[in-house]
Amino acid sequence: MDDGIAVDFDEDGLVPAVAQDAETGEVLMLAYVSPEALDRTRETGLAHYYSRSRDELWQKGKTSGHTQDVAEVRVDCDADTLLYLVDQEGGACHTGRRSCFYRTIEGENVGERVFDPDAVYDD
Amino acid sequence: MDDGIAVDFDEDGLVPAVAQDAETGEVLMLAYVSPEALDRTRETGLAHYYSRSRDELWQKGKTSGHTQDVAEVRVDCDADTLLYLVDQEGGACHTGRRSCFYRTIEGENVGERVFDPDAVYDD
Repeated sequence: MDDGIAVDFDEDGLVPAVAQDAETGEVLMLAYVSPEALDRTRETGLAHYYSRSRDELWQKGKTSGHTQDVAEVRVDCDADTLLYLVDQEGGACHTGRRSCFYRTIEGENVGERVFDPDAVYDD
Repeated sequence: MDDGIAVDFDEDGLVPAVAQDAETGEVLMLAYVSPEALDRTRETGLAHYYSRSRDELWQKGKTSGHTQDVAEVRVDCDADTLLYLVDQEGGACHTGRRSCFYRTIEGENVGERVFDPDAVYDD
Protein backbone atom coordinates (compact mmCIF):
# COMPACT_ATOMS: atom_id res chain seq x y z
CA MET A 1 0.00 0.00 0.00
CA ASP A 2 1.29 3.45 -0.75
CA ASP A 3 -1.58 5.56 0.53
CA GLY A 4 -1.67 7.32 3.89
CA ILE A 5 1.08 8.72 6.09
CA ALA A 6 4.69 7.80 5.24
CA VAL A 7 5.99 5.91 8.27
CA ASP A 8 9.57 6.71 9.30
CA PHE A 9 11.06 3.23 9.73
CA ASP A 10 14.42 3.12 11.54
CA GLU A 11 17.77 1.93 10.18
CA ASP A 12 16.65 -1.67 10.76
CA GLY A 13 13.46 -1.02 8.80
CA LEU A 14 11.25 -1.25 11.89
CA VAL A 15 9.05 0.90 14.12
CA PRO A 16 7.56 0.01 17.51
CA ALA A 17 3.82 -0.63 17.56
CA VAL A 18 1.69 -0.46 20.70
CA ALA A 19 -1.38 -2.71 20.70
CA GLN A 20 -4.27 -1.31 22.71
CA ASP A 21 -7.67 -2.90 23.34
CA ALA A 22 -10.02 -0.77 21.21
CA GLU A 23 -12.86 -1.20 23.68
CA THR A 24 -11.32 -1.13 27.18
CA GLY A 25 -8.23 0.95 26.40
CA GLU A 26 -5.93 -1.61 28.06
CA VAL A 27 -2.39 -1.54 26.66
CA LEU A 28 -1.76 -5.13 25.63
CA MET A 29 1.76 -5.35 24.21
CA LEU A 30 4.50 -3.67 22.23
CA ALA A 31 6.15 -5.28 19.23
CA TYR A 32 7.96 -4.17 16.10
CA VAL A 33 6.57 -3.65 12.61
CA SER A 34 8.28 -3.76 9.21
CA PRO A 35 6.82 -2.17 6.07
CA GLU A 36 5.60 -5.62 5.00
CA ALA A 37 4.04 -6.28 8.42
CA LEU A 38 2.18 -2.97 8.20
CA ASP A 39 0.98 -3.71 4.67
CA ARG A 40 -0.23 -7.17 5.71
CA THR A 41 -2.00 -5.66 8.74
CA ARG A 42 -3.82 -3.12 6.60
CA GLU A 43 -4.66 -5.64 3.88
CA THR A 44 -5.98 -8.39 6.18
CA GLY A 45 -7.23 -6.42 9.20
CA LEU A 46 -5.22 -8.80 11.41
CA ALA A 47 -2.23 -7.56 13.40
CA HIS A 48 1.13 -8.52 11.90
CA TYR A 49 4.53 -7.76 13.43
CA TYR A 50 8.17 -8.45 12.68
CA SER A 51 10.04 -10.68 15.10
CA ARG A 52 13.54 -9.33 15.71
CA SER A 53 14.68 -12.54 17.41
CA ARG A 54 13.29 -14.90 14.75
CA ASP A 55 13.92 -12.37 11.97
CA GLU A 56 10.58 -12.98 10.30
CA LEU A 57 7.14 -11.56 9.61
CA TRP A 58 4.68 -12.80 12.17
CA GLN A 59 0.89 -12.85 12.37
CA LYS A 60 -0.18 -12.42 15.98
CA GLY A 61 -2.14 -15.46 17.12
CA LYS A 62 -1.43 -17.61 14.06
CA THR A 63 -0.21 -20.44 16.33
CA SER A 64 -2.17 -19.68 19.49
CA GLY A 65 -5.42 -18.51 17.95
CA HIS A 66 -5.09 -15.32 19.98
CA THR A 67 -5.44 -13.04 17.01
CA GLN A 68 -5.90 -9.28 17.00
CA ASP A 69 -8.54 -7.75 14.74
CA VAL A 70 -7.28 -4.27 13.98
CA ALA A 71 -9.98 -1.62 14.11
CA GLU A 72 -7.63 1.28 13.41
CA VAL A 73 -3.93 2.04 12.94
CA ARG A 74 -2.69 5.37 14.30
CA VAL A 75 0.64 7.10 13.73
CA ASP A 76 2.38 9.43 16.16
CA CYS A 77 3.51 13.00 15.49
CA ASP A 78 6.99 11.93 14.35
CA ALA A 79 5.56 9.01 12.31
CA ASP A 80 8.03 6.67 13.99
CA THR A 81 5.61 4.79 16.27
CA LEU A 82 2.33 3.04 15.54
CA LEU A 83 -0.73 2.38 17.68
CA TYR A 84 -2.88 -0.61 16.77
CA LEU A 85 -6.42 -0.40 18.19
CA VAL A 86 -7.42 -4.05 18.38
CA ASP A 87 -10.05 -6.54 19.34
CA GLN A 88 -7.90 -9.13 21.16
CA GLU A 89 -8.95 -12.78 21.05
CA GLY A 90 -7.97 -14.50 24.33
CA GLY A 91 -4.79 -12.99 25.76
CA ALA A 92 -1.99 -11.02 24.16
CA CYS A 93 0.76 -12.34 26.42
CA HIS A 94 2.54 -15.66 25.94
CA THR A 95 2.43 -16.13 29.74
CA GLY A 96 -1.37 -16.40 29.57
CA ARG A 97 -2.24 -12.88 30.64
CA ARG A 98 -4.51 -10.52 28.78
CA SER A 99 -1.72 -7.89 28.71
CA CYS A 100 2.07 -8.27 28.68
CA PHE A 101 2.22 -5.40 31.21
CA TYR A 102 1.03 -7.51 34.12
CA ARG A 103 3.74 -6.50 36.61
CA THR A 104 4.66 -3.28 38.31
CA ILE A 105 8.35 -2.34 38.33
CA GLU A 106 8.32 -3.29 42.03
CA GLY A 107 7.41 -6.84 40.98
CA GLU A 108 3.78 -6.90 42.02
CA ASN A 109 1.58 -9.03 39.76
CA VAL A 110 -1.47 -7.01 38.67
CA GLY A 111 -2.66 -9.23 35.77
CA GLU A 112 -4.89 -12.28 35.75
CA ARG A 113 -4.21 -15.41 33.72
CA VAL A 114 -6.87 -15.70 31.01
CA PHE A 115 -5.51 -18.91 29.44
CA ASP A 116 -3.07 -21.72 30.17
CA PRO A 117 0.05 -21.14 28.05
CA ASP A 118 1.08 -24.82 28.27
CA ALA A 119 -2.15 -25.76 26.52
CA VAL A 120 -1.59 -23.24 23.72
CA TYR A 121 2.11 -23.10 22.85
CA ASP A 122 4.33 -26.02 21.91
CA ASP A 123 7.56 -24.13 22.51
CA MET B 1 17.47 2.21 42.80
CA ASP B 2 18.24 -1.47 42.68
CA ASP B 3 14.91 -2.88 43.90
CA GLY B 4 12.23 -4.32 41.65
CA ILE B 5 12.35 -6.06 38.29
CA ALA B 6 15.64 -5.94 36.36
CA VAL B 7 14.85 -4.12 33.13
CA ASP B 8 16.51 -5.50 30.00
CA PHE B 9 17.95 -2.36 28.39
CA ASP B 10 19.07 -2.78 24.77
CA GLU B 11 22.60 -2.37 23.35
CA ASP B 12 22.11 1.42 23.41
CA GLY B 13 21.08 1.26 27.07
CA LEU B 14 17.46 2.15 26.33
CA VAL B 15 13.97 0.65 26.40
CA PRO B 16 10.78 2.08 24.91
CA ALA B 17 8.25 3.44 27.38
CA VAL B 18 4.57 3.95 26.58
CA ALA B 19 2.86 6.75 28.50
CA GLN B 20 -0.82 6.10 29.15
CA ASP B 21 -3.32 8.38 30.88
CA ALA B 22 -3.92 6.61 34.21
CA GLU B 23 -7.53 7.76 34.34
CA THR B 24 -8.86 7.68 30.76
CA GLY B 25 -6.56 4.97 29.36
CA GLU B 26 -5.58 7.16 26.39
CA VAL B 27 -2.17 6.28 24.99
CA LEU B 28 -0.31 9.59 25.00
CA MET B 29 3.18 9.00 23.60
CA LEU B 30 6.12 6.66 23.28
CA ALA B 31 9.65 7.67 24.21
CA TYR B 32 12.86 5.98 25.32
CA VAL B 33 14.17 5.46 28.83
CA SER B 34 17.72 4.98 30.11
CA PRO B 35 18.54 3.46 33.52
CA GLU B 36 19.09 6.98 34.86
CA ALA B 37 15.77 8.21 33.40
CA LEU B 38 13.99 5.31 35.09
CA ASP B 39 15.70 6.00 38.41
CA ARG B 40 14.81 9.70 38.23
CA THR B 41 11.21 8.83 37.34
CA ARG B 42 10.90 6.53 40.33
CA GLU B 43 12.65 8.94 42.69
CA THR B 44 10.72 12.06 41.71
CA GLY B 45 7.37 10.64 40.56
CA LEU B 46 7.73 12.74 37.38
CA ALA B 47 8.22 11.09 33.98
CA HIS B 48 11.79 11.25 32.68
CA TYR B 49 12.98 9.96 29.32
CA TYR B 50 16.16 9.86 27.31
CA SER B 51 16.26 11.86 24.09
CA ARG B 52 18.03 9.89 21.37
CA SER B 53 18.29 12.95 19.09
CA ARG B 54 19.60 15.32 21.77
CA ASP B 55 21.46 12.51 23.57
CA GLU B 56 20.38 13.62 27.02
CA LEU B 57 18.18 12.85 29.98
CA TRP B 58 14.93 14.75 29.72
CA GLN B 59 12.15 15.56 32.17
CA LYS B 60 8.84 15.64 30.33
CA GLY B 61 7.29 19.09 30.61
CA LYS B 62 10.30 20.80 32.18
CA THR B 63 10.15 23.50 29.46
CA SER B 64 6.47 23.40 28.57
CA GLY B 65 5.03 22.78 32.02
CA HIS B 66 3.23 19.76 30.57
CA THR B 67 4.58 17.35 33.14
CA GLN B 68 3.52 13.76 33.76
CA ASP B 69 2.92 12.61 37.32
CA VAL B 70 3.65 8.89 37.29
CA ALA B 71 1.14 6.85 39.26
CA GLU B 72 2.70 3.51 38.37
CA VAL B 73 5.46 2.00 36.24
CA ARG B 74 4.75 -1.39 34.67
CA VAL B 75 7.12 -3.78 32.94
CA ASP B 76 6.22 -6.21 30.17
CA CYS B 77 6.78 -9.98 30.17
CA ASP B 78 10.21 -9.70 28.53
CA ALA B 79 11.17 -6.74 30.75
CA ASP B 80 12.21 -4.78 27.66
CA THR B 81 9.32 -2.31 27.50
CA LEU B 82 7.86 -0.01 30.15
CA LEU B 83 4.38 1.41 30.65
CA TYR B 84 4.08 4.69 32.55
CA LEU B 85 0.60 5.29 33.95
CA VAL B 86 0.47 9.06 34.22
CA ASP B 87 -1.54 12.10 35.12
CA GLN B 88 -0.78 14.36 32.14
CA GLU B 89 -0.71 18.11 32.65
CA GLY B 90 -1.95 19.86 29.47
CA GLY B 91 -0.98 17.89 26.38
CA ALA B 92 1.71 15.27 25.78
CA CYS B 93 2.34 16.21 22.14
CA HIS B 94 4.56 19.08 21.02
CA THR B 95 1.97 19.85 18.31
CA GLY B 96 -0.52 20.85 21.00
CA ARG B 97 -2.56 17.65 21.08
CA ARG B 98 -3.33 15.65 24.18
CA SER B 99 -1.85 12.52 22.54
CA CYS B 100 0.89 12.15 19.93
CA PHE B 101 -1.29 9.52 18.22
CA TYR B 102 -3.71 12.06 16.77
CA ARG B 103 -3.72 10.73 13.18
CA THR B 104 -4.87 7.53 11.56
CA ILE B 105 -2.49 5.88 9.11
CA GLU B 106 -4.84 7.11 6.37
CA GLY B 107 -4.06 10.66 7.47
CA GLU B 108 -7.31 11.53 9.22
CA ASN B 109 -6.90 13.86 12.19
CA VAL B 110 -8.69 12.41 15.22
CA GLY B 111 -7.09 14.57 17.96
CA GLU B 112 -8.05 18.01 19.24
CA ARG B 113 -5.57 20.77 20.02
CA VAL B 114 -5.52 21.38 23.78
CA PHE B 115 -2.85 24.09 23.74
CA ASP B 116 -1.08 26.42 21.30
CA PRO B 117 2.43 25.08 20.76
CA ASP B 118 3.74 28.48 19.59
CA ALA B 119 2.87 29.91 23.00
CA VAL B 120 4.67 27.11 24.84
CA TYR B 121 7.82 26.17 22.95
CA ASP B 122 10.60 28.49 21.86
CA ASP B 123 12.01 26.09 19.30
